[in-house]
Amino acid sequence: MQERILTGDRITGKLHLGHYVGSLKNRVELQNSYECFVLLADVQALTTHFDHPAIVCDNLRHVAMDYLAAGIDPNRSTLFIQSMIPEIAELTVYFSMFVTVNSLRHNPTIKTEAAERGYKQLNYGFLGYPVSQAADIAICRATLIPVGEDQVPHIEQTRKIIRRFHDLYRPVFPEPQALVGDIPRLTGLDGGRKMGKSSGNAISLDSSPQQVKELIQKAVTDPERIHKNDPGHPDICPIYSYHQAFNAPQADDIYKNCTQGTIGCFECKTKLAAKINELLEPMNERREAISNYPKQIDEILISGTERARALARETMQEVREAMGIAYFAQPR
Amino acid sequence: MQERILTGDRITGKLHLGHYVGSLKNRVELQNSYECFVLLADVQALTTHFDHPAIVCDNLRHVAMDYLAAGIDPNRSTLFIQSMIPEIAELTVYFSMFVTVNSLRHNPTIKTEAAERGYKQLNYGFLGYPVSQAADIAICRATLIPVGEDQVPHIEQTRKIIRRFHDLYRPVFPEPQALVGDIPRLTGLDGGRKMGKSSGNAISLDSSPQQVKELIQKAVTDPERIHKNDPGHPDICPIYSYHQAFNAPQADDIYKNCTQGTIGCFECKTKLAAKINELLEPMNERREAISNYPKQIDEILISGTERARALARETMQEVREAMGIAYFAQPR
Ligand code: SF4
Ligand code: SF4
Repeated sequence: MQERILTGDRITGKLHLGHYVGSLKNRVELQNSYECFVLLADVQALTTHFDHPAIVCDNLRHVAMDYLAAGIDPNRSTLFIQSMIPEIAELTVYFSMFVTVNSLRHNPTIKTEAAERGYKQLNYGFLGYPVSQAADIAICRATLIPVGEDQVPHIEQTRKIIRRFHDLYRPVFPEPQALVGDIPRLTGLDGGRKMGKSSGNAISLDSSPQQVKELIQKAVTDPERIHKNDPGHPDICPIYSYHQAFNAPQADDIYKNCTQGTIGCFECKTKLAAKINELLEPMNERREAISNYPKQIDEILISGTERARALARETMQEVREAMGIAYFAQPR
Repeated sequence: MQERILTGDRITGKLHLGHYVGSLKNRVELQNSYECFVLLADVQALTTHFDHPAIVCDNLRHVAMDYLAAGIDPNRSTLFIQSMIPEIAELTVYFSMFVTVNSLRHNPTIKTEAAERGYKQLNYGFLGYPVSQAADIAICRATLIPVGEDQVPHIEQTRKIIRRFHDLYRPVFPEPQALVGDIPRLTGLDGGRKMGKSSGNAISLDSSPQQVKELIQKAVTDPERIHKNDPGHPDICPIYSYHQAFNAPQADDIYKNCTQGTIGCFECKTKLAAKINELLEPMNERREAISNYPKQIDEILISGTERARALARETMQEVREAMGIAYFAQPR
């Protein structure tokens, strides 16, 4: 069987280097070996952003552009928009019947959110996040889901829902496997735990070379290092972690020079900015080429969504037949 | 504005006299004054019957037949099937964002079920029943919902969700009003609180005159009445309550004769059976006429569902525009 991969992002802003390192780079490689579906998860983004939906709308095409610029090839990867596949909502409604409220409360993501906001204040849609995730995966009959170790329980929840469906009716879906890989996480420019978690701590993929230089020069470093010759602590410096991510061959040298006080932070940052700009240069070029014909983005999104929708329709027809509610000979 | 009514039934079995007295009779009258939509709620039935979906499938056409036999006119009332309107599922997903888990826990229907089965064992779909009910109403922009006094809080929940949508985005839906009426409830043939709650305590609308006679003769009466001349207690006798429902002009006489011991139960039941058969006779005739051309049921369901779907598509397009997620010029 040809493996089919589902990946994607919630549409809550432009993509940045954290996305690139954490998943995008991997997706560009995966599309060479697998059939890939990439979900622009606007509905799921709305679950937490329904009171300012402009964030979703304003960023949808931007994220699509980020994908293409990063090297996602629309001929090999199907980009599709969640809100334009009503079959996902339909399957979510059916899957909702097979899951107790209790089991959802034990989902790690729900637990984290409930701890912050109080369980009772969760909105109903958010509580159902694991169910709608299962529907995303099942509707396109994905077989492999690239995730980090911590996401494996989510895929297990999906497998459980699918097995329940198969026990109740008959097999319709493949049981998806987690494609577990190392998902590196970038720290923020402000030293925060994760790039993108607060505003101004990320380098977006559409940054110009000048912007990259400025952002890197403003970034937090070892706060105890005042003079160039002070020995530094690269392990607590985000710049060093970026060297590991984007300048691996020289990272050991940077480490040594920093701890020995033989490199200044300005020079260290200048080297890093150059490396990041090397990475972004082809992306910026692709971005510019696409900008010359802006309709292309819409065409790619529309045709990808149509392709995904045809598959989703087929899946739902089989779901209806399995459940015994395909009442009429002609699917409608 | 032309008022639009939404009514309907969960598809969990054939319709019986309890349905006729409680709602069907009223609907047949309402269609003379209002635009009526009648929902065959198969998805909602599955929420509690997902482990034996044949109940839903087997009864769908039967219920449609019951409607037509009772006098629902497909030219005046739009019969439509819930599972064939994916837009209801889509709207349910959006509405799910505006409702906290907590507010759902306070819904009377949920509370009752939770008291029986334990809150944590509820399935996620069932907990969302008030949300999907709101979507049913909103998707066809119904303005009037015929309900009993006890159902008014449900309509208030729908109004709340709709107002929330309007506050967040912009007005798209009418705010539905409860059309509060007396919803008479028939007791069961076995003396149970409600006809249809247990098997064998109902007279289905497709019963033959002979079946009606037999079911009535077997029905429970005043258990203290042994001999014909014993004074009876009509207030605790289901047969007397049926006389009130189906033989109102003679009900007072029955009451008097029963309490005075001047009528026997056999005779009392025979009178009642005749009255019920008078009511069912035109239904049986219509049923037979339709049976001569069985395709008619499918045609009525398909064309009603298409009509409802066109309306649902329009509504969802406006929903998307109001939320700012109608990304492309052409609706798809
Ligand atoms: S020299 Fe580089 S790694 Fe060391 S503290 Fe400065 S910026 Fe960080
Ligand atoms: S006479 Fe009629 S109302 Fe009285 S107990 Fe018998 S069946 Fe019931």
